Amino acid sequence: MMKVIKTVHEMQAFSHAQRTGGKRIALVPTMGYLHDGHISLLNEAKKQGDLLVMSLFVNPMQFGPKEDLAKYPRDFARDTMIAERAGTDIIFYPDAQEMYPGPFKTTVYVSDLSDILCGKTRPGHFQGVTTVVAKLFNVILPHTAIFGEKDFQQLVILRRMVKDLNVPVEIIGMPIIREPDGLAMSSRNTYLSVDDRHRAISISKGLSNALDAFHKGVRDDKKLREIVRNDIQSAGLREDYVEVVDETTLQPVHELSHTARIVTAAYAGNVRLIDNMALK
Amino acid sequence: MMKVIKTVHEMQAFSHAQRTGGKRIALVPTMGYLHDGHISLLNEAKKQGDLLVMSLFVNPMQFGPKEDLAKYPRDFARDTMIAERAGTDIIFYPDAQEMYPGPFKTTVYVSDLSDILCGKTRPGHFQGVTTVVAKLFNVILPHTAIFGEKDFQQLVILRRMVKDLNVPVEIIGMPIIREPDGLAMSSRNTYLSVDDRHRAISISKGLSNALDAFHKGVRDDKKLREIVRNDIQSAGLREDYVEVVDETTLQPVHELSHTARIVTAAYAGNVRLIDNMALK
Repeated sequence: MMKVIKTVHEMQAFSHAQRTGGKRIALVPTMGYLHDGHISLLNEAKKQGDLLVMSLFVNPMQFGPKEDLAKYPRDFARDTMIAERAGTDIIFYPDAQEMYPGPFKTTVYVSDLSDILCGKTRPGHFQGVTTVVAKLFNVILPHTAIFGEKDFQQLVILRRMVKDLNVPVEIIGMPIIREPDGLAMSSRNTYLSVDDRHRAISISKGLSNALDAFHKGVRDDKKLREIVRNDIQSAGLREDYVEVVDETTLQPVHELSHTARIVTAAYAGNVRLIDNMALK
Repeated sequence: MMKVIKTVHEMQAFSHAQRTGGKRIALVPTMGYLHDGHISLLNEAKKQGDLLVMSLFVNPMQFGPKEDLAKYPRDFARDTMIAERAGTDIIFYPDAQEMYPGPFKTTVYVSDLSDILCGKTRPGHFQGVTTVVAKLFNVILPHTAIFGEKDFQQLVILRRMVKDLNVPVEIIGMPIIREPDGLAMSSRNTYLSVDDRHRAISISKGLSNALDAFHKGVRDDKKLREIVRNDIQSAGLREDYVEVVDETTLQPVHELSHTARIVTAAYAGNVRLIDNMALK
């Protein structure tokens, strides 16, 4: 039977007892409103550990003052069903007060990596992510934690944090899960109007076209970025960024000699969407 | 037999095995050049755990560019002897490259508390402390960690960090150990000239006089601070700060209704000394 735990104290005590009993804990951190992308993470976590913990916390600290915290989609009943079906043992479901009680003052910050790409448009966002993930790791004490590659920058930053702070957790990244027409799955897709939903296909189409060009021998990052840019702009989306970056440093790559990643963010109406593909 | 471990990997694996075997780990983090203050921490740690780990790392990240990193006193042979005599099981003794390899980018920061008192004079210092202690906790995986009250602000900040990030480590603070004439023990006392060593007594004398006045009924923080200020200035020391602060928030206290702490920093020649006493 799946169990819902709402307090830090109970979760930490439970995890501590499980570890002492020799159990291997796998964590999938989520903000809920689960889709097939999350399910693929839960499935991988099931293979990685004896005990599968899914956290469900819409983390206020990673939303900017003008962002969508209040309207972020929530459906706890549905999430519970999906999580249980995927074999989740524990849902850790704290409220904001439990995670950030009154005199809270501590942040975990990964410099440089947090301030480029999405971090440029969303100042403070990744600091919110690294801080809450550091907390979740201390509360849930997992041996391994599974994240999706859609939030590629997030994954790179968390790997950096874990290495830098010697956090004893293995980070696993899992491939993006896409809709049949190519759109990367995201809880935020639910915001899209019918028209914008259609236009949004241009993001993954643009990335695919850039990847095709790469496979045909194009190695100039400008040309590859131009392909994506053209596709999303002709569909009527507004580009936030299109970059070809190193998979560890997130710095721009101009000569594609080893695997790089083409990453993009674009607005369909007011909805900000992100996607990426490995160039290899 | 005491063992010296120099790598993160070996230390983490060792601690993990000890925990799995049911051992309780007590940590005393130090920068070496041990004195009786450190020994009192080691003695307490010996009571608190089955396995006593002392870390010895002069942490570059907590020194400012104009501070005394290069000349900070070091004597590993002597420290080893003292630690072994105090029953230390493991000395964790990494070098700077082991703790901060090339692409290091992560910091742990406790806002407000880190920027006042000593943090005002030593910008970045406490960020260096919280970051290295977060790392040491992840590497050594202690159940409990023991710190001295001489660095009172450090103790308060670390307690805040541990609470905020849900770090599963119990923090214990131990009373200041003093020389027979009252000077708080510190590795930096070794820098003092004979004359400055004599003048430095005025710091603990001033604090004692303020505490006496408090016991006689003085509740006005200004009067108490004035007593310390007069003592250290007449001895020829230069005041950095003298404050009466709340023991959790470190905010100035003007009406002494519950326990507060009188804290000070002063320069004897070029040597910066700190000390404090509880007003209760």
